[in-house]
Amino acid sequence: VDTWKVYVDVLKELGKLNSAIALLSWDEETHMPKKGLTLRAETIGKLSRTAFELSISDELGRCIEELEKRDDLSEDKAASVRIVGKRYRRNKAVPPDLFEEFTIAQSKSQAAWGEAREASDFALFCPHLEKMVDYTRQFAELYGYQESPYDALLERYESGMTSARLHAIIEPLRERLVPFLDRLLIDGTPPDTSALDGRFPVDAQRALARTILERIGYDFDAGALDDTLHPFTSQIAPGDVRVTNRYLETNPLSGLFGALHEGGHALYDQGMGDDLYDLQLTDGASYGFHESQSRLVENQIGRSEPFWTFFRPVFIEAYPALSNLSAEALYRAANHVSRSPIRVEADEVTYNLHIMLRFELETKLLDGSIQVANLPTLWNDAMDRYVGLTPTSDAAGVLQDVHWSHGLIGYFPSYMLGNLYAAQISRTLREDIPALDEQIARGDFAPLLDWLRDKIHRFGGIYEPGELIVRVTGQELSPEPFLAYIFDKYSKIYGL
Amino acid sequence: VDTWKVYVDVLKELGKLNSAIALLSWDEETHMPKKGLTLRAETIGKLSRTAFELSISDELGRCIEELEKRDDLSEDKAASVRIVGKRYRRNKAVPPDLFEEFTIAQSKSQAAWGEAREASDFALFCPHLEKMVDYTRQFAELYGYQESPYDALLERYESGMTSARLHAIIEPLRERLVPFLDRLLIDGTPPDTSALDGRFPVDAQRALARTILERIGYDFDAGALDDTLHPFTSQIAPGDVRVTNRYLETNPLSGLFGALHEGGHALYDQGMGDDLYDLQLTDGASYGFHESQSRLVENQIGRSEPFWTFFRPVFIEAYPALSNLSAEALYRAANHVSRSPIRVEADEVTYNLHIMLRFELETKLLDGSIQVANLPTLWNDAMDRYVGLTPTSDAAGVLQDVHWSHGLIGYFPSYMLGNLYAAQISRTLREDIPALDEQIARGDFAPLLDWLRDKIHRFGGIYEPGELIVRVTGQELSPEPFLAYIFDKYSKIYGL
Repeated sequence: VDTWKVYVDVLKELGKLNSAIALLSWDEETHMPKKGLTLRAETIGKLSRTAFELSISDELGRCIEELEKRDDLSEDKAASVRIVGKRYRRNKAVPPDLFEEFTIAQSKSQAAWGEAREASDFALFCPHLEKMVDYTRQFAELYGYQESPYDALLERYESGMTSARLHAIIEPLRERLVPFLDRLLIDGTPPDTSALDGRFPVDAQRALARTILERIGYDFDAGALDDTLHPFTSQIAPGDVRVTNRYLETNPLSGLFGALHEGGHALYDQGMGDDLYDLQLTDGASYGFHESQSRLVENQIGRSEPFWTFFRPVFIEAYPALSNLSAEALYRAANHVSRSPIRVEADEVTYNLHIMLRFELETKLLDGSIQVANLPTLWNDAMDRYVGLTPTSDAAGVLQDVHWSHGLIGYFPSYMLGNLYAAQISRTLREDIPALDEQIARGDFAPLLDWLRDKIHRFGGIYEPGELIVRVTGQELSPEPFLAYIFDKYSKIYGL
Repeated sequence: VDTWKVYVDVLKELGKLNSAIALLSWDEETHMPKKGLTLRAETIGKLSRTAFELSISDELGRCIEELEKRDDLSEDKAASVRIVGKRYRRNKAVPPDLFEEFTIAQSKSQAAWGEAREASDFALFCPHLEKMVDYTRQFAELYGYQESPYDALLERYESGMTSARLHAIIEPLRERLVPFLDRLLIDGTPPDTSALDGRFPVDAQRALARTILERIGYDFDAGALDDTLHPFTSQIAPGDVRVTNRYLETNPLSGLFGALHEGGHALYDQGMGDDLYDLQLTDGASYGFHESQSRLVENQIGRSEPFWTFFRPVFIEAYPALSNLSAEALYRAANHVSRSPIRVEADEVTYNLHIMLRFELETKLLDGSIQVANLPTLWNDAMDRYVGLTPTSDAAGVLQDVHWSHGLIGYFPSYMLGNLYAAQISRTLREDIPALDEQIARGDFAPLLDWLRDKIHRFGGIYEPGELIVRVTGQELSPEPFLAYIFDKYSKIYGL
């Protein structure tokens, strides 16, 4: 038998199942009427179970074992075997009964989190989170690790990353960011955002989101833009990568940067070679790397001055009431910094502080040095130390994010890594394309996209994130480019 | 073992697979970007194959055999076993190799039809249609029948119907319709439709379609309205029945009646008991019965004078340029009769003639009394005899419909049966609710919907169509109520 063919046939079956699941999930968040939910949940559950069973099938296991011994596989094929093999062992490591027990507890935990957040009462969620932490600890033991159980969880999102390395990255980042934030807000002159107060019709915002997505090179023949409550990008198939977005009538920037953020994710997905889908290599290099592509487009490009030079006329045409605003005024307004209790509303300067706080708490939860019951107090303390404010409620504090209720521990660092990768990649990008600012200022995004495709997108998941960042930038991941970017940009904007 | 439980568990699995397939298909016609097609076709193919295998599984077969022996099953359970058993035997009857051969030929046939229609050249399609007819003949033999092979095909769409009964219905229908059409168009005074010439923004048409769907009782919490090329209604789940529609900028009635037609289908689906889905009883009593619900809402209601009394102000508000038109003028314009070569553009008077022609040709194709190669000539001859005109091209003649290219023979009569059922049901409806016209005239559709739910919708597929029409109207299906309806209505409109 041709082992490679058997292997790829299993992956192709998986690819079709995943495509159906992706569509069912996308639809659930975009078009599905509310009365369709009951069967939808069961349908996704059924197909997910089928896909899971396929991912741990003995047939696949035999293929992986045999293919891992071969040294004649091309780079992409070898990467496929590495990634699929890793997932196979991970999925195999958890006994089916334990996993089923977990999914039932998980769904109760999610519901309890929703109620607790609604009531702003952590006590309602506490026993469920205790269970989630307990399951996560068990999973970490089953997955295995070298130094810390947290590493076993991190591995799923950022292969090769460890909590020790994260600590080493976070330490200098925090030590320099926190005082900079204080200086900025105490000594600096904040941009004037009052001109953006008003009402901005959602139809106009949606049309603008479409315009900017087309402009940055998002291919609508291989995608779609739909409304949702919590924006996300979904890879439904090669040739079908959909962006969802949300618009606030009182804030014309929220939906715009949402579109740029999701657009960045979507460009990554659309730029991966079609042949990578059947190899299960279209998740990107890591969660952090995927986030870097969204952050780069949203922040390094969308929140830059040349972007607003280009975009001002388009923006003003959509909102004539803003026509007295210069490109510089818009650029400044788009870069207002504040101490917000809410992660998803955080600006570039404070965003990583929200992540550090979560990383600190979840590593300690996992090693048992803090207790779930004490989280609200610990959260508020850390918030004060990092961001410099105390949340006024559990809902605006420890209950704000859904992740932990799903048992997703080890996920949050991806957001921070995305910011750091983005700044480091952006530095190389600007060295490679000295004319980038002029290109962006005239709305020419093609050289940017070509560069990203050539250096990053086309490889999909072929390289480990640690390898890819060195290939792209010549250096290992470091917080330094991010800090330099932030200090330089915001010192100017705030007149320090 | 509890056979009933095993049986229902299989049906529940089928229900989930069918729900996923329905969503993938709906999305393909509404939101999917064109580059997503390749994997989509494979994904639908894979899930359809899984569902098909489940529908002929030995486990299901054993359950059916055992349950068919039981006489203690409730009415709905017994109906489920009858319908699922019938489908099981039908699907089992065709050897898998033959079926696979057919699906490959089918997909070539569809492509060839598209090209032939584009080029308006029947010769390009002829060899493929010959194959489709040949497969259909083989299937009919494998399914089995009493009198005519055509009956074996009809059974799938209209259980209990035979070609002999269809002939008996068609004969008097044609003999009275054809001369009536001549009288109408020669002696009558046609309604003036010139006021409807103009441009009607698609956005306004879409909003109007939404308004009228809400008004007739379509539940948007269990549905959605989306654009497509060829309107259809999709039952994605209990609680998720979606309408799709199309709008022509130059014709404000096309999209309106499209919405009412699909709305009629959707009300049927939304009105079936939720517990019927797991029993596979939510396809309705038959294709003809499903069509009766769309036709009743579209024609007996939407093309009635009281409807336009109610709807005129809404219509005029959307299209102020038409404000000089009275309700009566709109009613008359909505009921213009003409000799059109195209079935889907046909009015109430001529529609059934298009079906008779197809029935005559497809029964003769099947029994070998005519040859595929002669179809264009035979089509044009029959068109002249029935509708009184000769198509000017194959595209506007024998190539206009997609059905035969799929091997769908025996399907067309459902459209005619829908018209006849609708008229017969409508007669009883008006006897049961004498105030119906006044209710419609003030936009109160609730009594109508309550009646349809009580008499028809809630039963889903529990009754055979022949049984249901007697339960609802006290009589077997007859062309007489339809003829009386047409003669009365159009004699008045055309001043005969």
